[in-house]
Amino acid sequence: MYNTQNIFAKILRGEIPAIKVYEDAHTLAFMDIMPQVNGHTLVIPKYEAETLLDLPPEWLGDFMQGVQKVAAAVKAGMQAPGIVLLQLNGTAAGQSVPHLHMHIIPGSLIDLRKPHAHTMAKPEDLEHYAQLIKAHLAL
Amino acid sequence: MYNTQNIFAKILRGEIPAIKVYEDAHTLAFMDIMPQVNGHTLVIPKYEAETLLDLPPEWLGDFMQGVQKVAAAVKAGMQAPGIVLLQLNGTAAGQSVPHLHMHIIPGSLIDLRKPHAHTMAKPEDLEHYAQLIKAHLAL
Repeated sequence: MYNTQNIFAKILRGEIPAIKVYEDAHTLAFMDIMPQVNGHTLVIPKYEAETLLDLPPEWLGDFMQGVQKVAAAVKAGMQAPGIVLLQLNGTAAGQSVPHLHMHIIPGSLIDLRKPHAHTMAKPEDLEHYAQLIKAHLAL
Repeated sequence: MYNTQNIFAKILRGEIPAIKVYEDAHTLAFMDIMPQVNGHTLVIPKYEAETLLDLPPEWLGDFMQGVQKVAAAVKAGMQAPGIVLLQLNGTAAGQSVPHLHMHIIPGSLIDLRKPHAHTMAKPEDLEHYAQLIKAHLAL
């Protein structure tokens, strides 16, 4: 059962702010406030799905087109030689917010082996990286 | 430039074997021979793309529908409470085979922190897990 009070649902409804880098009819992308590396970005579908398995198959193309666009912009904006896509399904997998989200991490598998941040990044730093990424996204 | 001699291209052409669990017009899924956890499965598109950024946008829906079907079957067949999807783009990210592939890992983020296996799993073990997964895929 989808929990409409999760933090990403609130961001989608505009109830709480996020540092956005991209938005279209089906997806929203914003900076992770506890980034694993600089430029760590999240893409979510505008559909009440808790995991990838809950997204209607006909939504997958639009969701992943958003992911692909943002991943290309993160790669270019952060001048990253590698991009990791990570998507966790279920609390047992390590999913912390129960709304489907794709992590776009300009780095490597090695970065995932570091413990996750437990403190929030400075908003001005997130804004800076968001600007670098948005420069590569036609809005 | 896509390297047509990579191991997944050879699997797609039937030149070398793989322990397959699913195949349709656009995707092929098979067991990772160096699994991070039991049931570790790979899904690849039948398109010569090195990374997700190289796949034509119109292919994303079909590719991810294959991923979604196989992920559901891995979850059910392996009785996994959590499923991790991981997709590495570029050698700098840790990508080892230069053909786009999605890792489906019945486990958690913690499993990614373990060093990757350097030895091949026993074929009979891979066959066993493949059978458990295939039982949940209509063929």
